[in-house]
Amino acid sequence: MKRSELIKQIRTKQSFLCVGLDPDLAKIPKHLLELEDPVFEFNKGIIDATKDFAVAYKPNLAFYECLGIQGWKSFQKTIEYIPKDCLVIADAKRGDIGNTSLYYAKTFFETYNCDALTIAPYMGSDSVKPFLNHENKWAVVLAMTSNQGAKDFQFIESKKTPLFESVVRKCIEWGTSEQIMFVVGATRSSDIAKIRALAPNHFFLVPGVGAQGGSLDEVVKYGMNSDCGLLVNSSRGIIYADTTEDFKVGAKKEASKIQSAMDMHLRRLS
Amino acid sequence: MKRSELIKQIRTKQSFLCVGLDPDLAKIPKHLLELEDPVFEFNKGIIDATKDFAVAYKPNLAFYECLGIQGWKSFQKTIEYIPKDCLVIADAKRGDIGNTSLYYAKTFFETYNCDALTIAPYMGSDSVKPFLNHENKWAVVLAMTSNQGAKDFQFIESKKTPLFESVVRKCIEWGTSEQIMFVVGATRSSDIAKIRALAPNHFFLVPGVGAQGGSLDEVVKYGMNSDCGLLVNSSRGIIYADTTEDFKVGAKKEASKIQSAMDMHLRRLS
Repeated sequence: MKRSELIKQIRTKQSFLCVGLDPDLAKIPKHLLELEDPVFEFNKGIIDATKDFAVAYKPNLAFYECLGIQGWKSFQKTIEYIPKDCLVIADAKRGDIGNTSLYYAKTFFETYNCDALTIAPYMGSDSVKPFLNHENKWAVVLAMTSNQGAKDFQFIESKKTPLFESVVRKCIEWGTSEQIMFVVGATRSSDIAKIRALAPNHFFLVPGVGAQGGSLDEVVKYGMNSDCGLLVNSSRGIIYADTTEDFKVGAKKEASKIQSAMDMHLRRLS
Repeated sequence: MKRSELIKQIRTKQSFLCVGLDPDLAKIPKHLLELEDPVFEFNKGIIDATKDFAVAYKPNLAFYECLGIQGWKSFQKTIEYIPKDCLVIADAKRGDIGNTSLYYAKTFFETYNCDALTIAPYMGSDSVKPFLNHENKWAVVLAMTSNQGAKDFQFIESKKTPLFESVVRKCIEWGTSEQIMFVVGATRSSDIAKIRALAPNHFFLVPGVGAQGGSLDEVVKYGMNSDCGLLVNSSRGIIYADTTEDFKVGAKKEASKIQSAMDMHLRRLS
């Protein structure tokens, strides 16, 4: 998906919501477990319930891989089921030496035809660049994550520059805002502003709103740009809003609530 | 596999060779492409040819994932075919927030029953610790890699400490030498010595000998400890030593040559 198409979708749906598809067999509604492919049936229900309110879906690969080959089948069916007007982000946190990264790019951009893939930057340029050669596909590079452990390395300072800033500075040398997005956690708003100053045009994929304590208002205040520039993710808050047979109703309600708040923020933009 | 068992294998085979299983359909012998599962047939041939000289095998997941579900079938068959006395390292460079890392650990340590998994440390403690709770399984954390891009972030200094040192320092607080190994590239020998000083008992998985320019003698000089403490990986140098129908002969010859050099180094230890 082109950047301009993503922006158009955001305006059409008045939403910058990304729904995280993290199907956990221990948490999904019990009645689905009797079906042939519970993971896909769950995702299908969630997608049906939320597609009017979401511009992106983000399946987290760990939840598919742990089921072995059946999990990959569910992943593939899910990707194919997501409406074509939505961005598909494979949340797989890949990254390796150049030759290997080429094959990861092939996996997610060709074999599974996803639009975007999350990338861990620790191994540097040759681990990121192979993901930039696919037209209208995105490398979503971890910059500042929302988890507790983010502090261990991402905030280590060298000449007063924390590591996450060095990652952003380097990445914007390697690729444009048509090729790279950044994962920017919602939990530290002043740092969102720092990254926005460095990368004014890049989209940010923002986890950590809701359950992890981040605030949508703060993310918008410090992270939004004139094209919106944000995809705010919610996984558990939406998909497990209701874990009974009525899970679609619960997911729809929650997604709709978030979309309404986003709509208000987007109205101020235009 | 327990650390003591790994050390015993090293002594039994007089080898600390790890063979990287990176099967690339464009490179494997042409006659295999006619078979039902060329990737597995290739790996089977390589394992048969090298198992007397290798103590570990390291399939690189990118080469399996890019083939879709068939690739995961080949991966699973390969894991099952590797002799039980060899350590199986899934080279998958995983790492995510705690809840997700739990599922990656389950994937590789339970679903596929590998002994070890490579881990990218960028997201910090909660991305690494979930891999430490499986008995006799290993997290092989990227410390200093052998690729060109390693310089971009791993060598950034804070208070004269490069990032890779901070990673090692933190990780040895989180897990013992029975739980964690480090990826330490062969291409910068003085830095191998630094990491050995910080982590005297941990095993190092060492890529970069051969094609990438690292020297076995230097790695041994700066990295070996009294238990050996090294697994030196060779992928392309062995598996593509000969890409004709005689590929097994070429792989065996190359693995045997490396094992002979390792034997000499190990004799000096005892």
